[in-house]
Amino acid sequence: MTFQLSEVIEVLERTPKILEQYLVGLSDGWLESNEGEGTWNPSQVIGHLIDAEKYNWIPRLELILSETSDKKFPPFDRFSHLQQYHDWTIEEKITKFSSVRAENVAKLKEMIKDQNQFEMTGIHPEYGEVKVRELISTWAVHDLTHISQITRVMAKRFDVAVGPWKSYLGILNKS
Amino acid sequence: MTFQLSEVIEVLERTPKILEQYLVGLSDGWLESNEGEGTWNPSQVIGHLIDAEKYNWIPRLELILSETSDKKFPPFDRFSHLQQYHDWTIEEKITKFSSVRAENVAKLKEMIKDQNQFEMTGIHPEYGEVKVRELISTWAVHDLTHISQITRVMAKRFDVAVGPWKSYLGILNKS
Repeated sequence: MTFQLSEVIEVLERTPKILEQYLVGLSDGWLESNEGEGTWNPSQVIGHLIDAEKYNWIPRLELILSETSDKKFPPFDRFSHLQQYHDWTIEEKITKFSSVRAENVAKLKEMIKDQNQFEMTGIHPEYGEVKVRELISTWAVHDLTHISQITRVMAKRFDVAVGPWKSYLGILNKS
Repeated sequence: MTFQLSEVIEVLERTPKILEQYLVGLSDGWLESNEGEGTWNPSQVIGHLIDAEKYNWIPRLELILSETSDKKFPPFDRFSHLQQYHDWTIEEKITKFSSVRAENVAKLKEMIKDQNQFEMTGIHPEYGEVKVRELISTWAVHDLTHISQITRVMAKRFDVAVGPWKSYLGILNKS
């Protein structure tokens, strides 16, 4: 499959709107449900998405496209958001995520001038050399992963409630 | 966990809005992608959700609450939608799903007058005796299952595109 930036942007632009419809106004029972100790509830997932916008995708892309010779990505702290946004309401988190995402999509469109940039590389701390097109594709799939996580966490809350239907509902049998 | 009808309704009312933000205006590459032969693309999933509104949840609930002594659910055809909505646009499908869902949530609120109804039972063709509260819980989790399916199908389209990140993105390693 040929890499199409426009297809990635379709997903990136939708995610904040999907999450707004999904989570704003939802009762605390849903927003605070998780999959057990050390797992995130739907509200905490949004904190992680905000941090990924601030510290991960665009900063990494900027590093790759910059003149710097050291292309090694700084590590991304995937847990600091648990403290940082601890007392934010879901509305505040979604508003912040929507605005930082919109800024970043605008930056992305601005930064990519030419298809050859898709093949430029940076050095991921674990995976080694990664391409711009892989980074941008992962940005979209990362959104989908976390929409899926929110959906699964919510479904599992009704794990017992569905009675004998559990075996038929695949989502209840996943981690 | 105590069964709370209001929590189920929160999910039932959100699903059409989530799916509208997710799918309306999305390009065909995304809408027509599936997980291989015999699997559904995101647009086909909406056809299935329309049929479940028409033939499954509310008709079964009506049967349980009715005076009829034969409480056996008629079987639900999970595949006829593939022909029936074959030439509908995604906008047409989402509009239909939204309207039939709104009617059904109104019926649900109208039909449930009293907590004792939650324990009333019908006979599922495969699972045998099932309770009203299990049927209603399953209705909501069925929505979540199909939101999850759409998300997974879309993510898998970028299975190769994400390069070395694949191992880290759990959604790409699920069926």
